[in-house]
Amino acid sequence: MEELSRAGKQALKSQPFSALMGARLTSLSEGKAVLEVPIREELLQQNGYVHGGVISYIADNALMFAGGSVLGPAVLTSEYKINYLRPASGETLVARASVVNAGRRQAVCRCEVFTTGAGRKETFCAAAQGSIVSVSAPREA
Amino acid sequence: MEELSRAGKQALKSQPFSALMGARLTSLSEGKAVLEVPIREELLQQNGYVHGGVISYIADNALMFAGGSVLGPAVLTSEYKINYLRPASGETLVARASVVNAGRRQAVCRCEVFTTGAGRKETFCAAAQGSIVSVSAPREA
Amino acid sequence: MEELSRAGKQALKSQPFSALMGARLTSLSEGKAVLEVPIREELLQQNGYVHGGVISYIADNALMFAGGSVLGPAVLTSEYKINYLRPASGETLVARASVVNAGRRQAVCRCEVFTTGAGRKETFCAAAQGSIVSVSAPREA
Amino acid sequence: MEELSRAGKQALKSQPFSALMGARLTSLSEGKAVLEVPIREELLQQNGYVHGGVISYIADNALMFAGGSVLGPAVLTSEYKINYLRPASGETLVARASVVNAGRRQAVCRCEVFTTGAGRKETFCAAAQGSIVSVSAPREA
Repeated sequence: MEELSRAGKQALKSQPFSALMGARLTSLSEGKAVLEVPIREELLQQNGYVHGGVISYIADNALMFAGGSVLGPAVLTSEYKINYLRPASGETLVARASVVNAGRRQAVCRCEVFTTGAGRKETFCAAAQGSIVSVSAPREA
Repeated sequence: MEELSRAGKQALKSQPFSALMGARLTSLSEGKAVLEVPIREELLQQNGYVHGGVISYIADNALMFAGGSVLGPAVLTSEYKINYLRPASGETLVARASVVNAGRRQAVCRCEVFTTGAGRKETFCAAAQGSIVSVSAPREA
Repeated sequence: MEELSRAGKQALKSQPFSALMGARLTSLSEGKAVLEVPIREELLQQNGYVHGGVISYIADNALMFAGGSVLGPAVLTSEYKINYLRPASGETLVARASVVNAGRRQAVCRCEVFTTGAGRKETFCAAAQGSIVSVSAPREA
Repeated sequence: MEELSRAGKQALKSQPFSALMGARLTSLSEGKAVLEVPIREELLQQNGYVHGGVISYIADNALMFAGGSVLGPAVLTSEYKINYLRPASGETLVARASVVNAGRRQAVCRCEVFTTGAGRKETFCAAAQGSIVSVSAPREA
């Protein structure tokens, strides 16, 4: 399990965009992933809330890590949908994803995105569902 | 029309995250929006392709601008789904969104995301569909 | 609670299409709904499995009943997405839906669809997520 | 092309549920499919409009026929999302689907659902997007 977590952290580190986002993989176990992004000014939209693109990023990536935890490291998000639930503000954006069903080469996963912060309770901001596919074989269009 | 385009550019500029992404609103007319992001190292994933989070960002934001072009400037993406079609690489990421159907307070929009570059033909990378809602009244959870 | 369940059964009975499908609302409580459809020859596709349209029907309707349990009876499905997981066969199709997040006029709900039958364990066939909206005010396009 | 259309009609006929729905494949060519369902009392919901389950059925099936027109006859809908746009009433429900992008084993397709009738113009009722997959190899969960 620790190995899985270490491999996941390595995978996240190898994504330049995840570095730009400041993402941290705080937990990875079989079928579950937790990803966090500290909220900073650069990640906001016009009203001072976290930009939807950041919420999509963290949901998409958490779905992928959850799927990868059962399919192996060579995976991609094939498709997903997201419902934004309420404006996101706070100190940290947290995405918790889990596998709903896994086959040999595809996993359907779900994710919930929250904001947290010192002295405040979690706020539920978005819910996503999507398919992660194994790409050990060459990916097709 | 020029006024719409000017207002759109102003709106994009007021989003710190869109500045971080380097996004440009290259066209905005009634029911249509084109958004571009120059591809740079920081926006990539582990295999050297544009990170899915960037593609989601541009799709989501283009959907929102298309919806806003008919609903007015105070809009939010309520939900969307995206299918990734193939790895994205090139010089520029381009998202073209259009309104499929609009009511008074909600617009269903679609978006296609491409990559372009000098001397190469466009590559179709992702297709999205979602709902944009007017938030002139206070938004509810 | 029994009143909610009674009202739900009444609502289902008032849908001619649900009668054609043979649907039964086996449980309805605040935030949760269980809908069942006995599997019969007429509901199958070419390979002898339950047709995707039947699975979509039961998922959509279960999402709507779950949403209606918190929003009130005058609700409609606004949008949803569904992932089919495996071929569905057995005696009964069962959809269990629950509210993920509810505002005053909109509820985001999720649903899992299973098949069951005497002497066999449940098979997980589809997962859905969507938005249910209140239409006490006149619905807009 | 006529052969494609004939094979499609045969495929539709082999689905007992499509017979129950009264569906007709009025057109099938490479990358495009048109499916129709005559609207009758049994297909309605409580307010006298076509039930969402019927709209989902026709969208899902039209997506599948469009995908099958480029991938071959052994295909299944893997996943889709649908936005309902307005209540559907009239004489005939019409779904027009087309391929957005096709690989060797997967096609992303879109569909628009309308109602038509003598002396009335078409009403746009729903928009869908989803993935169709080839199942010539044994399908995995």
